[in-house]
Amino acid sequence: MFTVTSEDKNPGSRPRVVIIGGGFGGLALAKSLKNAPVDILLLDKHNYHTFQPLLYQVAIGSIEADSIGFPIRRIFTKHENFSFNLAEVQKINPETNCIITDIGTIHYDYLVIATGSNTNFFGNKEIEHFAMPMKNIPEALNIRSLVLQNLEQALVTTDMREKSALMTFVVVGGGPTGVELSGALAEMRHLILAKDYHGLSKYDMRVYLVEGKDRLLAAMSPQASAAAKKFLAEGEVMIFNSAHVQSYDGFFLTIDNGKTIKTRNVLWAAGVKGEAPDGLPAEVTGKGSRIQTDEINRVKGYQNIFAIGDVSAVITPDTPNGHPGVAPVAIQQGQQLGKNIARLIKGEPTLPFRYKDKGTLATIGRNKAVADLGKLHFQGFFAWLLWGFVHLMSLAGFSNKGIIFISWVINYFNKNSDNRLIIRSFNTDTRRSNEAHK
Amino acid sequence: MFTVTSEDKNPGSRPRVVIIGGGFGGLALAKSLKNAPVDILLLDKHNYHTFQPLLYQVAIGSIEADSIGFPIRRIFTKHENFSFNLAEVQKINPETNCIITDIGTIHYDYLVIATGSNTNFFGNKEIEHFAMPMKNIPEALNIRSLVLQNLEQALVTTDMREKSALMTFVVVGGGPTGVELSGALAEMRHLILAKDYHGLSKYDMRVYLVEGKDRLLAAMSPQASAAAKKFLAEGEVMIFNSAHVQSYDGFFLTIDNGKTIKTRNVLWAAGVKGEAPDGLPAEVTGKGSRIQTDEINRVKGYQNIFAIGDVSAVITPDTPNGHPGVAPVAIQQGQQLGKNIARLIKGEPTLPFRYKDKGTLATIGRNKAVADLGKLHFQGFFAWLLWGFVHLMSLAGFSNKGIIFISWVINYFNKNSDNRLIIRSFNTDTRRSNEAHK
Repeated sequence: MFTVTSEDKNPGSRPRVVIIGGGFGGLALAKSLKNAPVDILLLDKHNYHTFQPLLYQVAIGSIEADSIGFPIRRIFTKHENFSFNLAEVQKINPETNCIITDIGTIHYDYLVIATGSNTNFFGNKEIEHFAMPMKNIPEALNIRSLVLQNLEQALVTTDMREKSALMTFVVVGGGPTGVELSGALAEMRHLILAKDYHGLSKYDMRVYLVEGKDRLLAAMSPQASAAAKKFLAEGEVMIFNSAHVQSYDGFFLTIDNGKTIKTRNVLWAAGVKGEAPDGLPAEVTGKGSRIQTDEINRVKGYQNIFAIGDVSAVITPDTPNGHPGVAPVAIQQGQQLGKNIARLIKGEPTLPFRYKDKGTLATIGRNKAVADLGKLHFQGFFAWLLWGFVHLMSLAGFSNKGIIFISWVINYFNKNSDNRLIIRSFNTDTRRSNEAHK
Repeated sequence: MFTVTSEDKNPGSRPRVVIIGGGFGGLALAKSLKNAPVDILLLDKHNYHTFQPLLYQVAIGSIEADSIGFPIRRIFTKHENFSFNLAEVQKINPETNCIITDIGTIHYDYLVIATGSNTNFFGNKEIEHFAMPMKNIPEALNIRSLVLQNLEQALVTTDMREKSALMTFVVVGGGPTGVELSGALAEMRHLILAKDYHGLSKYDMRVYLVEGKDRLLAAMSPQASAAAKKFLAEGEVMIFNSAHVQSYDGFFLTIDNGKTIKTRNVLWAAGVKGEAPDGLPAEVTGKGSRIQTDEINRVKGYQNIFAIGDVSAVITPDTPNGHPGVAPVAIQQGQQLGKNIARLIKGEPTLPFRYKDKGTLATIGRNKAVADLGKLHFQGFFAWLLWGFVHLMSLAGFSNKGIIFISWVINYFNKNSDNRLIIRSFNTDTRRSNEAHK
């Protein structure tokens, strides 16, 4: 154990900005501070940035895991004032301007919490144990292994009810993640099952989508919701709206609409909550465990602690619940906070954050997506092309862009993919990755 | 649990060929039997084929893991007489023509053991515990995590001797795998360390290669050995020849030339042994735990049990120790055995296996490789291009070819790569992948 403060290159000469979290917000902030008179220290528990919007494609085996992970050091190779450390933050200590981490105690002059969100099981421990979340690459690979192992198991089981449970997939949550995941499962059922799993029929495989609200993609336009429902229904996804999961014990899923589904695959995309480190008083945390901030993303009651992205909520009369927990908000907050920290150092007035909503896209599968761009709503092939273009352009690294683009083109024409590898064998009893079985 | 025999599509009508192992030999055999009047059942404990020659590039983070794994079902999508099951074989029961597996008891008419080889620690349990093998994708990813985690640790440790141990890499074994791995580590030291790990110098990082014989690449020509040694020395790899590791306790590696190296990274490429299932009598197993066979790869003493590839040795006066354990031997044996099984079924005479050695290639890094093609020996840039071409052409799937080619081209010009992700966090205490820390 050591104290990073003892390693300051220029102790005292430049303020140190410590950023916790290398997601969209943390990266945007670090880039925005490139020429500011500060030393940046970015901490993350992974050594890579995860491009979360494509996690579902890793889960379903369409693209490789490495394509949506980008080593953080590599992004900042040419940034002089940037350092990275692989670390887990245990506690913030605002009184001493320090954070306690597994690599030691680290001093900050400005602290930015950009730790994002994690899956929300709403306190149900049983569901948390048996359902599969998908918020990071290891979890997406766990889903991939579960799906593929259960199909393998379905081929060799002689118990027809167990076979049916192994081939029944329930996605909980009808937001973009749930819609995209259930669309991809429907596509796998339609295009791949009979081709690669001789002995399994697509009529044996069922995909359900359970959503609590009365329409899918509730944050988008009614037109987008209707089109998503239509596209999924065409893929034979069974949709339950205004329905809430009550329990899941690894075998039976019960829903408050009276249905019980026998399934071995429950994929949980029903909600997220802010994942803030310990050490701040309870009163700064609001709805969805998000840290409440003022208009420059400063945490209430502190001068030099900020929070951006999913973990935070800018509370103003216009945004009583903060902004939506999406990548563009995090990126814009990171960029704006970079400017504001530079202004604070120079003693200039800060500028309030204003979210510029450029629109929302969600894809349902091959040739099918929905788009809301301001007052423009459209669906289908052009929305799907736009979705692909926007996501490719947003990817952090040139080589990842190229590899994902090629994978997509090849998969599109092949109607198949080559990435259905069970690399992290998944133990269905412990519900954990099982490395002992390698 | 079930009995696969009860699921025969045409019980009794066509003989069933059961192949254990989806490596180079098993795949070549299954392909060769495509039009034979048999039902093929291929079993493997992974659901994918591993292109082992490029494992070291996965370990070093040059290419993505999924690129060198190919789902076995996907390879045989269009083969009518082919089935695959994910299964671990526990025992062969030759008396009843059955194998016992974790998915049930499986009957065979012809059994082919193509289980390959595994790392040989020569009985040293301590080394087996602390050194890192590299025979499959999960193991290559463990090495990747170890290397990257130790570099992260080196950045934050204040104990200078520990820092040195974290940055000292010892590769044991100077065959193709060891030469390629140490060459890649030297390249990482030279091209990537200072660029991405601000605070670490290449002069802090050391790469050793320990080989028992008096020259590297002992199976190749003296010219190839000399060039490999020269190339590695240029990359500042410290080479010990005629040297054997005596012990490694996780901190200190002792060698019988009197040296002791303090290191946290020992990569073991010093030998392999055949990995046959239980159930055959001890007398069929020879040197290196390989199953001894006759000239048509039939196991001595059996009419319908065969062994091909690394796990086997065709024992003849010309080949008293069998053929080398390399992919071309396994592929040619698989192809030949396919023809011979078809001949056996038709009652035609079988044809003995003759190995056609097309040459050997090994790469040492950027622009550097060595080649022995018959009497032709050459080294350097052209050998390196040839190495790349041959390996690309051998890759099983079109999309993998494209993705690896693009990765190589981008890495070549970037002098860097984007795949240094710690996806399988590695626990240096337990020396196992540590999923609990995700």
